[in-house]
Amino acid sequence: MSATPALNATETNAAIAELRALLGDRLTTSLPLREAHGRDESWHPVIPPDAVAFATSTEEVAGIVRICAKHRFPVIAFGTGTSLEGHISAPHGGLSLDLSRMNRILEVNAADLDVHVEAGVTRKALNAYLRDMGLFFPIDPGADASLGGMAATRASGTNAVRYGTMRENVLNLTAVMADGSVVRTARRARKSAAGYDLTRLLVGSEGTLGIITELTLRLYGIPEAISSGVVSFAEFEGAIDAVIETIQSGLPVARIEFLDEVQVAACNRYSKLSLPETPLILVEFHGSEASVAEQAERFGAIATEHGGGAFEWAVKPEDRTRLWEARHNALYAALALQPGKKGMITDVCVPISRLAEAVRGTKEDLAASPLVAPIVGHVGDGNFHLIMLVDPENAAEVAEAQRIHDRMVMRALSLDGTCTGEHGIGEGKMSFLEAEHGQGIAVMRAIKQALDPLNILNPGKLFSL
Amino acid sequence: MSATPALNATETNAAIAELRALLGDRLTTSLPLREAHGRDESWHPVIPPDAVAFATSTEEVAGIVRICAKHRFPVIAFGTGTSLEGHISAPHGGLSLDLSRMNRILEVNAADLDVHVEAGVTRKALNAYLRDMGLFFPIDPGADASLGGMAATRASGTNAVRYGTMRENVLNLTAVMADGSVVRTARRARKSAAGYDLTRLLVGSEGTLGIITELTLRLYGIPEAISSGVVSFAEFEGAIDAVIETIQSGLPVARIEFLDEVQVAACNRYSKLSLPETPLILVEFHGSEASVAEQAERFGAIATEHGGGAFEWAVKPEDRTRLWEARHNALYAALALQPGKKGMITDVCVPISRLAEAVRGTKEDLAASPLVAPIVGHVGDGNFHLIMLVDPENAAEVAEAQRIHDRMVMRALSLDGTCTGEHGIGEGKMSFLEAEHGQGIAVMRAIKQALDPLNILNPGKLFSL
Repeated sequence: MSATPALNATETNAAIAELRALLGDRLTTSLPLREAHGRDESWHPVIPPDAVAFATSTEEVAGIVRICAKHRFPVIAFGTGTSLEGHISAPHGGLSLDLSRMNRILEVNAADLDVHVEAGVTRKALNAYLRDMGLFFPIDPGADASLGGMAATRASGTNAVRYGTMRENVLNLTAVMADGSVVRTARRARKSAAGYDLTRLLVGSEGTLGIITELTLRLYGIPEAISSGVVSFAEFEGAIDAVIETIQSGLPVARIEFLDEVQVAACNRYSKLSLPETPLILVEFHGSEASVAEQAERFGAIATEHGGGAFEWAVKPEDRTRLWEARHNALYAALALQPGKKGMITDVCVPISRLAEAVRGTKEDLAASPLVAPIVGHVGDGNFHLIMLVDPENAAEVAEAQRIHDRMVMRALSLDGTCTGEHGIGEGKMSFLEAEHGQGIAVMRAIKQALDPLNILNPGKLFSL
Repeated sequence: MSATPALNATETNAAIAELRALLGDRLTTSLPLREAHGRDESWHPVIPPDAVAFATSTEEVAGIVRICAKHRFPVIAFGTGTSLEGHISAPHGGLSLDLSRMNRILEVNAADLDVHVEAGVTRKALNAYLRDMGLFFPIDPGADASLGGMAATRASGTNAVRYGTMRENVLNLTAVMADGSVVRTARRARKSAAGYDLTRLLVGSEGTLGIITELTLRLYGIPEAISSGVVSFAEFEGAIDAVIETIQSGLPVARIEFLDEVQVAACNRYSKLSLPETPLILVEFHGSEASVAEQAERFGAIATEHGGGAFEWAVKPEDRTRLWEARHNALYAALALQPGKKGMITDVCVPISRLAEAVRGTKEDLAASPLVAPIVGHVGDGNFHLIMLVDPENAAEVAEAQRIHDRMVMRALSLDGTCTGEHGIGEGKMSFLEAEHGQGIAVMRAIKQALDPLNILNPGKLFSL
């Protein structure tokens, strides 16, 4: 197999001509559209593809992939472009395959608590559709990402501590493989012991093993009662310890988020809130009225024990919504701290007992650095984010951010954690994937080479061949 | 690659001699031991391996696999031999690699709710060890299986409706691959977006992709309150409908099991109980005192609505234990109905809305058949089992059982279910795996060929090459 696709202008032109014959004006080479499809929400450089295709069905995706395979033309699946590690850039050129027009909700099985969707449906569109049925889909990365993209990057978010990540919430998916064949990975049964878990293999494969075109997702009943609240701490250690004890005690918290004082200040300014600008825990409980009240009481006691201040409830739904919207906009709030700068964003995830150590290490690095960099995290999972504001033109600043980033990731690995809890590898964390997996990379490579021998699916991502 | 290992007596003898040099008297060719290692708890024929090895460490397993690879000598991982689909038989000869002496509990991380074990630790041994720490591991197939075997077969059991299966509860595992390399699939972080999910790929791979030697598992705090009870129904439909409504209502039931009247009678006799011999639901709630009481009240109302009789509580721990031991011994109770016969055991799993239809179809088949065959199931997941008692020497009886079995599985597939919820494929369900996965089998084959090009790991299982 070729490590990188052997592309030349003749093959590129032939591929584009054949794609245009299939797709008509849903195939474009317009520069603005190509640039928009080579750009995600990260600090990674924009590398536009040679062309952009807008697909409308699984069969059409299969046809597109077959044409690309024939010409060894790379295919990069594109949902909403909200990934954070350069997942959708086109370092080897090729086609950005935009699935956003595959946005039909095909079937809701309310009785089975599942839904069959096309890959381009976004999480917010799905939840808007489900609301009147009393159902919801919990996985909520900050962005209003497409569900196909969320599966491809193994996304999670604030609810993962209770509901799991995309890993746990995809029942099956339909994918177009590198040879254009179409595979449905499983049935709608809640569990199965029938063969290799192709669903979980594709979830998190970042478009390198197959193009996800449809998914069946688990749904949940909207809880009878929901209550949210915030509690502030003088020191971040108290906040983290409160989270650890909450998780260890088995309290079935639905969300438990940490914001450091820098992030709280950013959210206050961006979302017009007036939270005390100290480390803060934002928490939510789901259940019956009685169980939510009981959970809240227990959490309040734990928070107090660890130096938490008064526990403030967001009882009214609109207050709750405002609080969580502020949380979901944390990235944008951080970026607004220093307009014009880019956010070098990273995340790690460690065993929860090592969380305080992991956060402290980065806090100490930042204290000795000129960088402004909020910390925010899904700390119930041991997962936290760092958003370093940098001027991409300032080499010293970029180098300093890279240094702190590298130390944060290597520290997480040394604590038996992972180099990314939810953002993925893309091209941004390839070296850390090697550091994390060692011999496991050889296994990943063998799988990639077996399933995509021409290396046309999102080449140049995850690991080198 | 060779579809089946090319074995001859010379290679076999050379492999055994080399293995004996490595292992001494932990390598045996004694016929009773070989037969014991070719036999599981199913009706499938005993096919003994050429030799049995007792490994004591991951490094030793790596050495064994390297010797076997050199001689293209098949390697069949063996835990406790309690699988149900001929997973451990040796149709191509080779080595049964017994991991039962790798039974050390290496590290409990109570703060992180995880434990690192060797693959030969059984679930009961682990739970006995954990009890004083207030922790438990929930996955409970009927047998006291090894945790490595449970991962390899993606086992589940009565708690899966609340806690998930082995798929959700393995944080990482250490495996020896077909070339003798050792891979640790992940870190201890609760979630990760770092590369292909090798953990989930190996979970359920039935020893065909790697030999699982160590695992890190999720643990849970023993709930503050546990309550169990039984409720009887005149008709199985009422019982199933009560289960469906319970799940749909989001009641966080920890266990919800169905036994038909034949199984109840068998359990009464085997476990010295006096349950009414009608369809029955056995249920358990975990939580705080208050939440358990609330859950039980809600369930009681649902059961009554669907024609359930009085809800009888097992309040005392010893009564609860007796009830659940009876449930776990359901298979042995069924076998005791007709001593001397074998149990042709099968399981399927369907979307819960199709459960009544799936059970009814098999009930109708059985009503028109002379076979005695209890039905029992983890119905909260849509998963149920059929245990048909047959005399293996009676060809007509075997054929009749096979006919009902095939109809049950094909019916499940037609209802968008899976051919096995938890027993796996082994050699017993290979044809159904093809029927279920279609084009997906080509993907599985490509992965197998990439990771085990000599086809030495449990050859002749899952799918043909």
